[in-house]
Amino acid sequence: MAVGPDTLPEFYPVAGFKLGTTSAGIKTPGRQDLVLMEVPEEASVAGVFTKNAFCAAPVQICKRHMELKTARYLIVNTGNANAGTGQEGWDDGALTCKTVADLMGVTDAEVLPFSTGVIGEKLPVEKIVAALPAAKEALIETGWEAAASGILTTDTRPKGASEQFTYNGQTITVTGISKGSGMIMPNMATMLGYVATDAEVDQTLLQSLLTASTDQSFNRITVDSDTSTNDSCILVATGASGVKVDAEDAALLAQFTEVLNRVMRDLAHAIVRDGEGATKFVTVQVDSAASQQEALAVAYDIAHSPLVKTALYASDPNWGRILAVVGRAGVENLDLDALQIYLGDVCIVENGGRAASYTEDAGQAVMDQEEIGIRVVLNRGDVTETVWTTDLSQEYVSINADYRS
Amino acid sequence: MAVGPDTLPEFYPVAGFKLGTTSAGIKTPGRQDLVLMEVPEEASVAGVFTKNAFCAAPVQICKRHMELKTARYLIVNTGNANAGTGQEGWDDGALTCKTVADLMGVTDAEVLPFSTGVIGEKLPVEKIVAALPAAKEALIETGWEAAASGILTTDTRPKGASEQFTYNGQTITVTGISKGSGMIMPNMATMLGYVATDAEVDQTLLQSLLTASTDQSFNRITVDSDTSTNDSCILVATGASGVKVDAEDAALLAQFTEVLNRVMRDLAHAIVRDGEGATKFVTVQVDSAASQQEALAVAYDIAHSPLVKTALYASDPNWGRILAVVGRAGVENLDLDALQIYLGDVCIVENGGRAASYTEDAGQAVMDQEEIGIRVVLNRGDVTETVWTTDLSQEYVSINADYRS
Repeated sequence: MAVGPDTLPEFYPVAGFKLGTTSAGIKTPGRQDLVLMEVPEEASVAGVFTKNAFCAAPVQICKRHMELKTARYLIVNTGNANAGTGQEGWDDGALTCKTVADLMGVTDAEVLPFSTGVIGEKLPVEKIVAALPAAKEALIETGWEAAASGILTTDTRPKGASEQFTYNGQTITVTGISKGSGMIMPNMATMLGYVATDAEVDQTLLQSLLTASTDQSFNRITVDSDTSTNDSCILVATGASGVKVDAEDAALLAQFTEVLNRVMRDLAHAIVRDGEGATKFVTVQVDSAASQQEALAVAYDIAHSPLVKTALYASDPNWGRILAVVGRAGVENLDLDALQIYLGDVCIVENGGRAASYTEDAGQAVMDQEEIGIRVVLNRGDVTETVWTTDLSQEYVSINADYRS
Repeated sequence: MAVGPDTLPEFYPVAGFKLGTTSAGIKTPGRQDLVLMEVPEEASVAGVFTKNAFCAAPVQICKRHMELKTARYLIVNTGNANAGTGQEGWDDGALTCKTVADLMGVTDAEVLPFSTGVIGEKLPVEKIVAALPAAKEALIETGWEAAASGILTTDTRPKGASEQFTYNGQTITVTGISKGSGMIMPNMATMLGYVATDAEVDQTLLQSLLTASTDQSFNRITVDSDTSTNDSCILVATGASGVKVDAEDAALLAQFTEVLNRVMRDLAHAIVRDGEGATKFVTVQVDSAASQQEALAVAYDIAHSPLVKTALYASDPNWGRILAVVGRAGVENLDLDALQIYLGDVCIVENGGRAASYTEDAGQAVMDQEEIGIRVVLNRGDVTETVWTTDLSQEYVSINADYRS
């Protein structure tokens, strides 16, 4: 199951950035499961990674290699997360980097490794090593679509976003891909996301743009409240467009940030739409909160509530369950009479109980949609936060009872 | 589905405490859905209630009436929670109390009302009023078993616990019933629980014993992380045994506390065993934590993880999912190399990865059981906490997609 049309955008290539996808047969023979990405020498690279303390070996290696604040190659395998694998996992990740480095004529530290798939099993590193020459042969600027498929695990479809805008007669491109479907509640990072632009952006600015953008995209989605050991998102600025984005041109910076944020948000939404067993795409917005912390507490408690999620799955306007979650979300001195709860545009709760204007038909009409908005207006301050989530179906249970992630 | 044998204990009556069960036809015609309990005049009564800010009208009334620190009658209906019902809900609860008071010759404030069932629908108070005389007629000291059934909602079976012990040749009884199956993560209270003893205990001590006992029983269970609007637990001490429990006889107080705690814990466990869609009874213990707060954070994050719960349902020793949860539980400066994770008696994680001694067969043998222990040893301090939970099955989703709670 998945929500919304299963269509990829037209991928605008990013000059200088190449992707090569091949089969290493890591978990499934013949599966296109290995993606090599080439970053041009002059590019800036920024990254954000999972805050899970048990972060996987490749994430640990990425963080160390990113101390250089640059990278020339990204190597991604699916089918095995190389997480919970101890020293052996680190050695396997390091061998992957060394093999790429030798093949491409760079140093080991210029290679960033990424793995996704089952946790706790040894990485079949010899298969990856054997397939790397084919990945090198496949490197091409138009390799985005193949790569979007090559990084998937339980995903039912590839995910991408691509935009171009023109500034002073010059065209700037931002293109990205992502993967993720279960174990989705990124914390300060994402599942796997790779975004590239041909703008020229220095590394410090690029990192701050990525961090801010992540906080409003990948860090605001949840399928099942479980933060992965392998979440990573990389943003590359090749500079090939010749357009320099920096603080000196505020209008350009604003426009670039807006496009970047939209691409990141679209990629994050694509993960939710393909959430395991998802039949609904749900936007939970908390308005006029006294703090970001309480806004997010209410929003995530709604987004994680199994009872709200099963009601969404049943298209049941069961507003009592939403009210019960708001009541338990730990907001200090919550004034029940002052708040409103909306389902779409329909007010369901006000004055401490069911809204006088509410009708079951109006609630049902909202719940029958595939895309549903839940909005809580706390009337305590001026903070708004939004998170995106899915419903909870029998299919989610089946997928995770059958699949070892 | 439910876990363990479907047997009620022998209920030892509590002298002076009577229960009467009848049918008011609140949701289902003919269903035994109304329970009246009579507390003798000389008894002490203690109560704990949900901390959900949207607490139901009957809970609000109970809290106000409990300011008297006593009560003569408890009136419980199932089929309608009288929650999210605003002023009308309060009026309906008050009318219920007044009718009981008039019928029994006490004041309104000596009656405690309890409701459980669907949230947000008007209480059919006229049906309750009409059925109260029959409930009065049914009052009897041996009414525990009928009452255990009369308070259920989505529960698949009644829940009870009853113990007697002898002290200086005198017999003391502690007997209780509980209900609950979904929307289960009590906070400072329980679902519905009613426990009575014939010991003589003054109200202040009784309240502190109940609060402490609740913290290690009903406040340590979770089915689906959702705290109800209606959780309530009442403890009555009739004094009819003539045995006074107080601080002056420390040995008696200790023995009484131990029996009370065991009855409370058995009632709490019975709710988990009958958790919606449950096929497993899971004990999550966190040892040698630096604080209670971090022990509970790790324990509840494991108990709430949909990925851990679906693996439990599949009897899959998918230890990587447990490891991932421990890593995201927000423990500051967690030393991964110092901790161990056990499945039953089998060490699955140590030295930052899979335990060298671990075998899939050993893990599978534990997971094949109906009762499963997960133990995390943090090796950071001396705090231990335990919570109890269920697995997550397709049946849970079906129940909550079909039932409006």
